[in-house]
Amino acid sequence: MSLTALLFGRRLASDEEEKEQIGPFSGVPVLGLDALASASYGPEAALTVLIPLGALGLRYIVPLSALVIALLTIVYVSYRQTIVAYPNGGGSYIVAKENLGTTAGLIAAAALLIDYVLNVAVAVSAGVGALVSAVPSLLPHTLGLCLAVLILLTAANLRGLRTAGLVFMAPTYAFLGCLFAVIAIGIGKTLLQGGHPTPVVAPPSGHAEASLGTASLWLLCHAFASGCTAMTGVEAVSNGVPAFRKPSSLQARRTLSYIVGSLGVLLAGIALLTRSYGITATEPGQTGYESILSQVVSAVVGRGPFYYATLSAVVAVLLLSANTSFADFPRLCQLLAIDRFLPEPFIHRGRRLAFSYGIGVLAGLSAILLVAFQGITDSLIPLFAVGAFLAFTMSQSGMVAHWRRVGGKRSGLHLAINATGATATAATLVVIIVSKFTEGAWISSLLVLTAFLTFRGVRRHYDRLDAEVRTHEPLDLSPPPPPLVVVPVRRWDLVTQNGLRFALQLSPDVYALQVLLDDPRVEDLSREWPALVEEPAKQKGLTPPRLVVVRSRYRRLFRPLLRFVATVARAHPDRKVAVVVPEVVESRWYHYLLHNHTATILKWLLLFRGGKGVVIVNTPFYLHDAPKAA
Amino acid sequence: MSLTALLFGRRLASDEEEKEQIGPFSGVPVLGLDALASASYGPEAALTVLIPLGALGLRYIVPLSALVIALLTIVYVSYRQTIVAYPNGGGSYIVAKENLGTTAGLIAAAALLIDYVLNVAVAVSAGVGALVSAVPSLLPHTLGLCLAVLILLTAANLRGLRTAGLVFMAPTYAFLGCLFAVIAIGIGKTLLQGGHPTPVVAPPSGHAEASLGTASLWLLCHAFASGCTAMTGVEAVSNGVPAFRKPSSLQARRTLSYIVGSLGVLLAGIALLTRSYGITATEPGQTGYESILSQVVSAVVGRGPFYYATLSAVVAVLLLSANTSFADFPRLCQLLAIDRFLPEPFIHRGRRLAFSYGIGVLAGLSAILLVAFQGITDSLIPLFAVGAFLAFTMSQSGMVAHWRRVGGKRSGLHLAINATGATATAATLVVIIVSKFTEGAWISSLLVLTAFLTFRGVRRHYDRLDAEVRTHEPLDLSPPPPPLVVVPVRRWDLVTQNGLRFALQLSPDVYALQVLLDDPRVEDLSREWPALVEEPAKQKGLTPPRLVVVRSRYRRLFRPLLRFVATVARAHPDRKVAVVVPEVVESRWYHYLLHNHTATILKWLLLFRGGKGVVIVNTPFYLHDAPKAA
Repeated sequence: MSLTALLFGRRLASDEEEKEQIGPFSGVPVLGLDALASASYGPEAALTVLIPLGALGLRYIVPLSALVIALLTIVYVSYRQTIVAYPNGGGSYIVAKENLGTTAGLIAAAALLIDYVLNVAVAVSAGVGALVSAVPSLLPHTLGLCLAVLILLTAANLRGLRTAGLVFMAPTYAFLGCLFAVIAIGIGKTLLQGGHPTPVVAPPSGHAEASLGTASLWLLCHAFASGCTAMTGVEAVSNGVPAFRKPSSLQARRTLSYIVGSLGVLLAGIALLTRSYGITATEPGQTGYESILSQVVSAVVGRGPFYYATLSAVVAVLLLSANTSFADFPRLCQLLAIDRFLPEPFIHRGRRLAFSYGIGVLAGLSAILLVAFQGITDSLIPLFAVGAFLAFTMSQSGMVAHWRRVGGKRSGLHLAINATGATATAATLVVIIVSKFTEGAWISSLLVLTAFLTFRGVRRHYDRLDAEVRTHEPLDLSPPPPPLVVVPVRRWDLVTQNGLRFALQLSPDVYALQVLLDDPRVEDLSREWPALVEEPAKQKGLTPPRLVVVRSRYRRLFRPLLRFVATVARAHPDRKVAVVVPEVVESRWYHYLLHNHTATILKWLLLFRGGKGVVIVNTPFYLHDAPKAA
Repeated sequence: MSLTALLFGRRLASDEEEKEQIGPFSGVPVLGLDALASASYGPEAALTVLIPLGALGLRYIVPLSALVIALLTIVYVSYRQTIVAYPNGGGSYIVAKENLGTTAGLIAAAALLIDYVLNVAVAVSAGVGALVSAVPSLLPHTLGLCLAVLILLTAANLRGLRTAGLVFMAPTYAFLGCLFAVIAIGIGKTLLQGGHPTPVVAPPSGHAEASLGTASLWLLCHAFASGCTAMTGVEAVSNGVPAFRKPSSLQARRTLSYIVGSLGVLLAGIALLTRSYGITATEPGQTGYESILSQVVSAVVGRGPFYYATLSAVVAVLLLSANTSFADFPRLCQLLAIDRFLPEPFIHRGRRLAFSYGIGVLAGLSAILLVAFQGITDSLIPLFAVGAFLAFTMSQSGMVAHWRRVGGKRSGLHLAINATGATATAATLVVIIVSKFTEGAWISSLLVLTAFLTFRGVRRHYDRLDAEVRTHEPLDLSPPPPPLVVVPVRRWDLVTQNGLRFALQLSPDVYALQVLLDDPRVEDLSREWPALVEEPAKQKGLTPPRLVVVRSRYRRLFRPLLRFVATVARAHPDRKVAVVVPEVVESRWYHYLLHNHTATILKWLLLFRGGKGVVIVNTPFYLHDAPKAA
């Protein structure tokens, strides 16, 4: 077994892909992880914005959460319709492209890709943040831990991680079970203790001093915009409808209900508990930082084994939720590449049937974000949600156009629902961009724009290429005259002979070109040429190759060569010029350190600078111990 | 004027090299800089070893210096003979190779190359050390300054620095003038004040407490070994005899006398003054560090303008003395490359007639040393002198063999002189290696050994290569059968047509090979092949190319291709297999980001793995806006 096989597993054949057939029970972990994990950073993001209000901020967390939940409900109802209308998978790209045209589709795609990248960065940093809350001594290693997790995820996905199975199910249901229990216990205690329960472990209160007396509308918009990150990932189910068991759209809708329902309960529960326990956010990235979830759980049940079990589930779910992007980003890239908006390598699956190229690009971009923002979730939050809400809006608007096009008796209601969804998400998008613009939303907007322009540019390039090379004409075989052949010759040896012999097979018109530099060991071949080449050629009745010797005063090798080729080509515009480049093939790579790589450089120069009629012929000369053929 | 021309100057023709014709006055700066500069770190190196003795150490500096000067005199007399015997330049490599054989020559060459590299590192670090002594606030930037100077020197040399001229003369004579004046004034004051002059500026005395009561022989050997670094660079004149005006060996001997005389005066003067002013070394690389020369000058004349003038000259001479290596290292590399002990690129001169390759290698190696030793001269000193004294010894031993071979009436005396030189330098070499072994001499010894083995290995490789490719036979032209041609085909377009057309020019036996991966956009060509290719070929009376379609279950492109080529080659061992690789040439480099580089990878794989009979033909297809030919 080779090292690659050990690291990446056996290469899989194209027909070995398993079709996943999932129901709601496995659908929640596979497609809902991203959405559910948002519950652990969304409320925290909102509360962090409220830090300047101190304890006063707690007054606003319940109404803000209620607003987010209301928006979530609207989006939920809208997406149920998308699932029914697009049983083969209705990602935002497809829905927008089919109904609103290519430009809208590409905007949606750009938004989604940026969203996926940010989801990886945020999920990883939030997961590590949760870990650091439980084990504060790890705080200084935040960025290192983030990158380690990213590398692990990338490796697992390159190996072709199966998204179903216990790996995903166990943490998801542990996460839901633990948090539901905490919420139930917490609300029970609150009710029993008259609305003001005593925390088992008091939340850190050092930061709860108010620096602002009252909340401005601006600050509240800000907090709302941050809280909306809790909704990212809701679109995943509508993408994945074909993965469900029949009747798939029913199963998918049921799954979406479970996911959104759970997410709603989590958001509401967390909001109520932070309120009643008086939990405020701590300054992210500073000593003493503790995540909201960690504070809530320790306030409700204390720092016992249950705390650690819950926090472990939170960490696991956050880290695994990054994986949603690893599944969806490369798949969307493939769709775009098939439509020729992205380069071809995105189409091909790697040795384990994963889209290695897309996975690599996603990992690279996320790593850049993590490093740029030092792995601090709070710094990444302002960039997030722009992509998600732009994709929501494009998808919902696409559905509006869809219903208008489809018509029919119930389409009016459907249209109204999706129009509400589109309006609500568009309004939220505006709030997010405006309130977070200087903090980071400008970066996301710029990234979306860049991605969009890239798609356009790539497509334009491929179209232009196609216009020039595509043909359906049969082969044109009007017999061309034989090519002219140029053989650069350094000295008289078997390598040169090998090249000259092949040159004479190609054409009767062969030029041997010797460029003399300042190497005292290389001799002018003029004197010996008649004996070495001309006589033997004449004896066989062949036209002898002509020797041209150029003395390069400026010790330039390639310029005289290219000039000669260009001169020959210009003199015979109707004929191809084949340049035969003789080359020695060595047995060991380090032997190439001893060479001057003339042949390699010459081949490149001829390819790019040779000109239209030039063909490059490379005659390798194998040394005795050169590696054997494949 | 292009950017390269602006940075590196106009390209020079091979016949534009000026012949320098120097006499003793310009010979001292050009060939003596390295030797004279040693005076500023040699005594310091010895005194640094004596630090543990405190003020007691001063007792030993005069006898130690006397020993070094005696050794210098022996080496001087020996080299005068080399100059007479080798009027065309008697570098250690040549003298040792001619008289003692190749192995001895290569050992001398290895020793010299290592010595040159260390000379750059030591000269730069000592120059920066002198600067830092004058401007202590620069101390923390020592390494950065060293590297900046190194980059400057490298750039100047790549541009083709002329070693004659005011750049070298002015600092050299300023250096000699100032230091001679300081020595004269200092000795005068000493005599006037009864042997114990009052320093104008008292040397720092914090480190002058003795931690050892008495000097062991070991410590003294150590100090002597360090002090011997003052002798490095003395061999330069014997290398450069042909550069002198006629009668060149007389002029060269006169120059050597001036250089060695000056060096002797400097060493003796510095020793006497440190003794009488009670100057001890300070801990190198620590705060409060001050070079010995700086202490001597400020003790004798104070920190006035003269101090700064002298120190400036010292800094200039040290930094310029690194340049001796930049002149000699690449020239020795060229000699070795012509004898095929080093790779070919060392032979060729760059755009400004400098040996760019050798200069680059020297700069790289010195940079590694500077970084590894943090730019601290004292840490580099134990590595130094090994190379120089090994080269001295090989050269003197070579001269002994020379006189034995030459015979004649006065050869007995000559032989005796060189034998004394060889014995003295060999003995010193043993002292240096033994006393400095663990501190760094082991590194130099290892480097010399590595260099020696590299020369041997390179030569062996070239010999083996030559044995396989060299021939003086005329071209063998028994008419070979036409090649078999394989054309990898992706889809039907003009690029493919271009390739197929050329393939049919090469031979009637053409295979078109289509490998199908998992790209949904690529169609099997089987159905259309008869209409597209077979019919037109038959109409022209040509054998139609055969289409072979391979479905790659494991999405491998290259393996099936190479397998097919290998199969064809095995089936026809008497014929060449030409693989035609069609390729699109784009107009902009960044367009290549959109390609999958199949053609490039395929060409490489065929070259290295194709096997003996394979020829690679690359048919470029130029897009309309592709760059024009040269």
